[in-house]
Amino acid sequence: MSRVRVHNFSVSLDGYGAGEGQSLEAPFGHAGNRLLAWFLPTRTFRAIHETQGEAGGTTGIDDAFASKWAQGIGAEIMGRNKFGPQRGPWADDEWRGWWGENPPFHTPVFVLTHHLRPSIAMRGGTTFHFIDASPADALKVAREAAGGLDVRIGGGPSTVRSFLAADLIDDMHVTVVPILLGRGERLWDGLEELESHFDVECVGSPSGVAHLTFSRR
Amino acid sequence: MSRVRVHNFSVSLDGYGAGEGQSLEAPFGHAGNRLLAWFLPTRTFRAIHETQGEAGGTTGIDDAFASKWAQGIGAEIMGRNKFGPQRGPWADDEWRGWWGENPPFHTPVFVLTHHLRPSIAMRGGTTFHFIDASPADALKVAREAAGGLDVRIGGGPSTVRSFLAADLIDDMHVTVVPILLGRGERLWDGLEELESHFDVECVGSPSGVAHLTFSRR
Repeated sequence: MSRVRVHNFSVSLDGYGAGEGQSLEAPFGHAGNRLLAWFLPTRTFRAIHETQGEAGGTTGIDDAFASKWAQGIGAEIMGRNKFGPQRGPWADDEWRGWWGENPPFHTPVFVLTHHLRPSIAMRGGTTFHFIDASPADALKVAREAAGGLDVRIGGGPSTVRSFLAADLIDDMHVTVVPILLGRGERLWDGLEELESHFDVECVGSPSGVAHLTFSRR
Repeated sequence: MSRVRVHNFSVSLDGYGAGEGQSLEAPFGHAGNRLLAWFLPTRTFRAIHETQGEAGGTTGIDDAFASKWAQGIGAEIMGRNKFGPQRGPWADDEWRGWWGENPPFHTPVFVLTHHLRPSIAMRGGTTFHFIDASPADALKVAREAAGGLDVRIGGGPSTVRSFLAADLIDDMHVTVVPILLGRGERLWDGLEELESHFDVECVGSPSGVAHLTFSRR
């Protein structure tokens, strides 16, 4: 059975998975890059995002966790706020995501939105599909598209939370970053005793973050 | 200069330092002992609370952090909700804390409350004093009583938070416990960018928790 996975999902110590005030210029709102500071120096991040094939990046514990992101994944589900900063009906069909013409997904990506639009085939195997569906129904569609591989729930916080609330996540990697954002979008609201469904491990990194893994019991 | 310190302060992953519904039977409300599960097996905890002098307890990383609690401390400041489950005016003077006749503090302890009552001298050097004061004023009084030693801020969450908000804490050890309490009293509210005042370290423990230390820059 294919598994439903979350990877590299960063939250602040006060539980925010995204800052306040997302915009074209500030994809993470007032959080800036602070939630990703552990991830940006890794070899995995550099290999994904530097098209020059430049060598480099750390290969320690942060990279060990980061590198699991793409392994065995056949489709991603993401919330619309991860796809772009627009809200409400699409003004036009020009926005094609934050990631340029060759996004790092290389699989079908299902964007949850009440405002449907035609699918977008990008270079490198990524196709964005727009669906208006419950977590369970979106998962059915994504599983079919994943061809037996796993499905990644890509965020943002409210999307991950809705899949957790529906008890659909099998494996989750959350990175707790020791900063206090104070405002934004919380991951953990309404999930009392979530841990009872999972085996939980926690390990600190020299970069200052704590990596937590939740594995379904 | 004596330092102002917090030790062994446990919070859930969703930021609660105490559960909901504190009562005589449930000192930590619905959280029960879950926030303390890392602490109870340590040699430090056992030595403090087992008057039989029984040997035993773990001596790993959890105990290393736990054992710093009493070192160099000359006074504690605590909130009234740490002292007892009563609210409002004292019905009588019978309540003498949760800790029996020989409390583990062995120093003056200043209990912050709007409802004053006479000091209580216990066995073993602990005296409870009741004061109605701001964090800064309470600290002045406690520093005087500490005779050059450090002052510990003992909790609960709103007391620690008020001292953090007033920028009065020098060293803080917080243990993040990977459970979701969902309700209770939050530690981190209103403290955006707290980390900018501190050097922060994070280390995981085999017991499953993450120990964070904040040291004033």
